[in-house]
Amino acid sequence: KKIYKIAVIGGDGIGPEVLAEGIKVLNRTAELDGSFAFDFTYFPWGCQYYLEHGEMMPEDGIEQLSRFDAIYLGAVGYPGVPDHISLRGLLIKIRKSFDEYVNLRPVKLLKGAPCPLAGVKREDIDMVFVRENSEGEYAGAGAWLYKDTPREVVIQDSVFSRFGTERIIRYAYDLARKEHKSLTSISKGNALNYSMVFWDQIFAEVGKEYPDVETHSYLVDAASMFMVKDPKRYGIIVCSNLFGDILTDLGAAISGGMGLAAGANLNPERKYPSMFEPIHGSAPDIAGQGKANPLASIWSASQMLDFFGHKDWGKKLIDIIEEMMVEKKVLTPDMGGTATTEEVGDEAVRLLGK
Amino acid sequence: KKIYKIAVIGGDGIGPEVLAEGIKVLNRTAELDGSFAFDFTYFPWGCQYYLEHGEMMPEDGIEQLSRFDAIYLGAVGYPGVPDHISLRGLLIKIRKSFDEYVNLRPVKLLKGAPCPLAGVKREDIDMVFVRENSEGEYAGAGAWLYKDTPREVVIQDSVFSRFGTERIIRYAYDLARKEHKSLTSISKGNALNYSMVFWDQIFAEVGKEYPDVETHSYLVDAASMFMVKDPKRYGIIVCSNLFGDILTDLGAAISGGMGLAAGANLNPERKYPSMFEPIHGSAPDIAGQGKANPLASIWSASQMLDFFGHKDWGKKLIDIIEEMMVEKKVLTPDMGGTATTEEVGDEAVRLLGK
Ligand SMILES: CC(C)[C@H](C(=O)O)[C@@H](O)C(=O)O
Ligand SMILES: CC(C)[C@H](C(=O)O)[C@@H](O)C(=O)O
Repeated sequence: KKIYKIAVIGGDGIGPEVLAEGIKVLNRTAELDGSFAFDFTYFPWGCQYYLEHGEMMPEDGIEQLSRFDAIYLGAVGYPGVPDHISLRGLLIKIRKSFDEYVNLRPVKLLKGAPCPLAGVKREDIDMVFVRENSEGEYAGAGAWLYKDTPREVVIQDSVFSRFGTERIIRYAYDLARKEHKSLTSISKGNALNYSMVFWDQIFAEVGKEYPDVETHSYLVDAASMFMVKDPKRYGIIVCSNLFGDILTDLGAAISGGMGLAAGANLNPERKYPSMFEPIHGSAPDIAGQGKANPLASIWSASQMLDFFGHKDWGKKLIDIIEEMMVEKKVLTPDMGGTATTEEVGDEAVRLLGK
Repeated sequence: KKIYKIAVIGGDGIGPEVLAEGIKVLNRTAELDGSFAFDFTYFPWGCQYYLEHGEMMPEDGIEQLSRFDAIYLGAVGYPGVPDHISLRGLLIKIRKSFDEYVNLRPVKLLKGAPCPLAGVKREDIDMVFVRENSEGEYAGAGAWLYKDTPREVVIQDSVFSRFGTERIIRYAYDLARKEHKSLTSISKGNALNYSMVFWDQIFAEVGKEYPDVETHSYLVDAASMFMVKDPKRYGIIVCSNLFGDILTDLGAAISGGMGLAAGANLNPERKYPSMFEPIHGSAPDIAGQGKANPLASIWSASQMLDFFGHKDWGKKLIDIIEEMMVEKKVLTPDMGGTATTEEVGDEAVRLLGK
């Protein structure tokens, strides 16, 4: 029997609550399947930990995590701890340390999910974002000169390496080929005269190896407009760290909201553990009240199953989320229901066993 | 009688056609008012000019333009001329040369305008973007190392000066105060650890002088989501060059489309001419067929009238655009009508005189 060792970092606010339901569901799939099992280890890291210890995770945190097959992350961030500390000390640190250079975010309008767009058919919203997750605009490099003087000037450097750009674009082409979908590259070469001209060049270059893949190339401003006006033109989308950040939130907005948005941070070579997370925040205002929606957390559990090769179970979890949304019986308040976080998880487990 | 000297650069594709209608309308307002008149001078610059002369405008182009009160620009870009040449040689060159550091873009859902969002009331979409237009992500600075080798690395520098950041934020606060609206700053301090941390700091600093203005501060990813899920929370919005580029296209998408999107490039000190443009592209596929929608061009004429202090006429033009959209009689095909570009302009002139 294959045992998957999972590091669970509930993190802040509603993080631990929503993960608990995902874990129930994962355990149940393992039980039903019989050929694998999960071994969950809990790490109490996050902002509370920071307030007590002065750091978001222990010094050997990354080393501890490195022994796991995957990381299941809840949410990071709490009032009183500046974002750049909490995120750089945990979420971003893990992404970088484990070279999780692919941020994979499905944007699919499931049956029963609310959509703010008029006249859009459910099937029209079905895309997957491949977001560069290790460099680009988020490289963290820059300079701050003449501080607090009239000639103060601040520089933020976006860093695009051939290594980093090629591998993300290649990953996206492979995915598009495998799934028989078109591939859209998003850039802004007409204004970002170094980084995005380079991006466009690599996209074309790598594309020569994939003559069978239909490609499109949009400017980021037009691309954001199409998300709203004509989402059906998208299949697989590849973009830089910042553009992916913006467009995937827009993607969440048109496909049921943050309560349904999941993201995987992958190290495709499996040299290091990958990380799976609902991408909503820690929502401190509703923490501990049983109101948090665990569906995004269950969706990220589905991504984890996919990554381990259990595609059937991954799909099954999505089917169950859909079923619950169509039934509209067991849903949390944000989805118009009256169920608690736990009840939604229990219902998912029940449906799995049916 | 005050004479406004306007440089008209029709540019490429549908540019000249749509400007022609705006010019009709401007002339008619002047006639009706009697206290001012327009003196239009036409410049045949653009991609055609480039193909003949090897440059988008003559060497002394900027000097020629400097003698005008304003520039009225159609559209720039044509297949066969790379974007970075056409834009950097004309649109961006004018913005920079004349220090048009404010890009002012109204996003307002007019009566009768189509909206792709379900359940949104017309009044819910009424905001004004104040986009930084002179530096930031579009500074054009960077480096390209180890070209065409495996260790190739490309760097794009965003440059935020205190001078540039303070003046745009101050402009936005002034506008919010004057219009009794809230002011939202859009940034991304949790990931862009130099530029956006600085931006947030200046926003707070300048804000101390405006205790009467209600402020909000959103991350750009969340901000783009709110554009779709809850646009009514926005009044005046201030943001950097790139974020403004993305969000104003999104703004156009939710408020009637590109056929209705106008933008002013302002040098508020009036040391140099400001520029007014419909922000749609040159649409080469429909150029010369009388199909282009001149409403954005008329809207930018309205912005020009505002800038010259003729606020009543500016408002009157918007009223007329609204009237035509409600009537749905004289509209171009993109708005579901059958009228030609010229007919729409003529109708606007007729309504003005009523
Ligand atoms: C929290 C933040 C740094 C992060 C990002 O921008 O990457 C988040 O918005 C996301 O999209 O995962
Ligand atoms: C054409 C392009 C350089 C320009 C920009 O990004 O500024 C356009 O998209 C705009 O928004 O005015």
